Amino acid sequence: MQLLETLCRLAAPSGHEDPMTAFVLDYVQQNQAKWQHQPRVLAGEGFQDCVVLVFGQPRTAVFAHLDSIGFMVRYGRQLVAIGGPETQAGYRLVGHDAEGEIDCALTINEETETLGYEFSRELPRGTELTFRCDFRETDATVQSCYLDNRLGVWTALRLCETLEHGIIAFSCGEEHGGGTVPFLAQYIYDHYGVRQALICDITWVTEGVHLGQGCVISLRDSLIPRRTYVDRIRAIAARAGIAVQLEVEDIGGSDAKELQRAAQPWDWCFVGAPEDHVHTPDELVDKRDIASMLALYQVLLCEL
Amino acid sequence: MQLLETLCRLAAPSGHEDPMTAFVLDYVQQNQAKWQHQPRVLAGEGFQDCVVLVFGQPRTAVFAHLDSIGFMVRYGRQLVAIGGPETQAGYRLVGHDAEGEIDCALTINEETETLGYEFSRELPRGTELTFRCDFRETDATVQSCYLDNRLGVWTALRLCETLEHGIIAFSCGEEHGGGTVPFLAQYIYDHYGVRQALICDITWVTEGVHLGQGCVISLRDSLIPRRTYVDRIRAIAARAGIAVQLEVEDIGGSDAKELQRAAQPWDWCFVGAPEDHVHTPDELVDKRDIASMLALYQVLLCEL
Amino acid sequence: MQLLETLCRLAAPSGHEDPMTAFVLDYVQQNQAKWQHQPRVLAGEGFQDCVVLVFGQPRTAVFAHLDSIGFMVRYGRQLVAIGGPETQAGYRLVGHDAEGEIDCALTINEETETLGYEFSRELPRGTELTFRCDFRETDATVQSCYLDNRLGVWTALRLCETLEHGIIAFSCGEEHGGGTVPFLAQYIYDHYGVRQALICDITWVTEGVHLGQGCVISLRDSLIPRRTYVDRIRAIAARAGIAVQLEVEDIGGSDAKELQRAAQPWDWCFVGAPEDHVHTPDELVDKRDIASMLALYQVLLCEL
Repeated sequence: MQLLETLCRLAAPSGHEDPMTAFVLDYVQQNQAKWQHQPRVLAGEGFQDCVVLVFGQPRTAVFAHLDSIGFMVRYGRQLVAIGGPETQAGYRLVGHDAEGEIDCALTINEETETLGYEFSRELPRGTELTFRCDFRETDATVQSCYLDNRLGVWTALRLCETLEHGIIAFSCGEEHGGGTVPFLAQYIYDHYGVRQALICDITWVTEGVHLGQGCVISLRDSLIPRRTYVDRIRAIAARAGIAVQLEVEDIGGSDAKELQRAAQPWDWCFVGAPEDHVHTPDELVDKRDIASMLALYQVLLCEL
Repeated sequence: MQLLETLCRLAAPSGHEDPMTAFVLDYVQQNQAKWQHQPRVLAGEGFQDCVVLVFGQPRTAVFAHLDSIGFMVRYGRQLVAIGGPETQAGYRLVGHDAEGEIDCALTINEETETLGYEFSRELPRGTELTFRCDFRETDATVQSCYLDNRLGVWTALRLCETLEHGIIAFSCGEEHGGGTVPFLAQYIYDHYGVRQALICDITWVTEGVHLGQGCVISLRDSLIPRRTYVDRIRAIAARAGIAVQLEVEDIGGSDAKELQRAAQPWDWCFVGAPEDHVHTPDELVDKRDIASMLALYQVLLCEL
Repeated sequence: MQLLETLCRLAAPSGHEDPMTAFVLDYVQQNQAKWQHQPRVLAGEGFQDCVVLVFGQPRTAVFAHLDSIGFMVRYGRQLVAIGGPETQAGYRLVGHDAEGEIDCALTINEETETLGYEFSRELPRGTELTFRCDFRETDATVQSCYLDNRLGVWTALRLCETLEHGIIAFSCGEEHGGGTVPFLAQYIYDHYGVRQALICDITWVTEGVHLGQGCVISLRDSLIPRRTYVDRIRAIAARAGIAVQLEVEDIGGSDAKELQRAAQPWDWCFVGAPEDHVHTPDELVDKRDIASMLALYQVLLCEL
């Protein structure tokens, strides 16, 4: 879980992912010699802050977004949200500007509901703030801000250790409005003919999805994936004897929204562990679901 | 109207269109020998559950969506909507699962407004339900669930009987969020250079659009088509002496939304009969408007 | 300001931009001999009503939308909005139909809030109306309807006078839902490899953005541009000593929305003067901000 903690501590709100990009590229360079198969690494010019790892003869692409929710300084002591963070007065927010490190507290104007910060000085417009990371691990659980989606990134990096054929695409901007999956989708389809996707991301505990009961296969959120593709995934999980939970929601979204709208015939399915306390500093995941998620990805990338 | 009834009875909610796909492909195979011209049939790999028929040297593509609205079982006895069905407690819903046929009743929780079903047993998550079809025909009208858009599909199939040059594109997912028109649009533009589109779908009776007064040419719904293209269509209808009605709305949408956003310079216009009792089991269309719609498509495909 | 007044007086609501297209093409033909460098002009077939000017070896594209907000006659004496105009009973609206010129007054039903018009006769469905132009110039300010975005178009045309390398893309439909930037973005990227964009449009006076304090560089509106790109633009402005204001909002959008969603890795930033009385007949801009905007575009197109 050391890698996961490192990922959770890195600030990379939507639009400013380059610290995560640099970390991932460095991690790949440091670790790929130990992997069973070495990928082709695509990054830099033409990929913005995304990273694409191509293993063997890929049939399926795994999308894991690098960015997180956060806040941006507006005017004076106002904040606006990056993505959809939960807000509670007193949440500790961190960042930095030309004058140094920032460690401040979220405020909420009771009348106007506008967001702000309490700090010893006024921060420059556009300064980005993220939740202060308090990483907590027990035998059974992991708790931290940004498990969504650093746990998806972690799963994708662990998957690389054994992956023979497949693509890992680390995307940007998912929390606030995406915009990188469209060009990744076109590039991957044009260069590798791949049009099967798995969305490697974290979903929500609800009345039908519980901690500890296995990785979630989503039958739908605000969008509906193609039934025949989801049924293949369910069948593979069942044959492999991996505990999974089926999600059926009518809200929520993921990088899949942009695959759905893409000008290539992508099939997609959301596959990921559930978490409680979504989009707070206290996101909570059960370790059994993490194990289920990694195991499921390993078998899906073999059999899809 | 036998063909139309058959189409209305087929369950194919968004995301699970393959029964309609199979029917259309079979219908084309059984009937195309009687058509004046034979199309090239594109389907299968790379087209998901869509079907594209290419006649001659096409200049215009007709888009008719195969899918319908419906419901999906959430958790326990809850339902969530597929697309935007009207809901009224007691509507009969049908489907099937591993245990057999399902014929149940829609319920609405008065406090929470959540949807559910009343049935002898609990249904598996993800089970799809559609309106039970009660097809009613009089001398003047046709009434059934899913005239939107089985009547568009019917019109497109009837249009095939005489079509010399043009493309018929049967799309999926329109009711719930689309996603197939983007790749159809790119494929058609790239392979045939076609960028004129007609949206072959059903619209609404409003204070300005009435049953029996002819096929609707929509000047706008939530989106606005390019004026010069719509004016050409209006002029062709006028010269042909076909009764039409002009729609001007600021809500509603169709497959045109995805053509509008496409990375090809598509012109599009919605052309279709109006119906009353939209998105209920009792959608009602006047036969004069059906005749007007088919006649208008026949002349438009010749002259556009 | 004669050119700006002419642009403001031209009616070209979203979907019906061809009068602006014709004007721009004619203006280019009349004036390009006086420009320091001559562009390649792309328009007509495959570009709908857009115009693209390509100068030298471009690295950056400037997007300026040609269309404006307005109104369209619905049924009877009802109107629906084109884009998001501010509405106040009594606003004078102009247009024309087969019977001649129209000069009428906007009405608002107090109970239903539906829009309408007061005129001597009933207007045909689909008739477009725009604000009557009352162009007012002082030493310090310009005031008129449609400074958004005729001032962006004006800036782009003035930029052409000295431009050596760069693309000017005049787009359509921005106010009501876009749809032309996707194909412009793909065309420009495919043919010229350009993926740096500046959105040449007008923004809002807010509590943090004021008239007369310089052109706005937007750090975000409803979407967030990539930080590294925006920081380069800020640095260029700072080095050039051009007064600018930084905007941080969580609402609003521009042609950038479609670049963000495009299947090419476009970087984009909104750069434009602020105005007061947005989307009314009385849009107000400070001349110092106009000068700042033009100067900033001139240096950005050299240095980006």
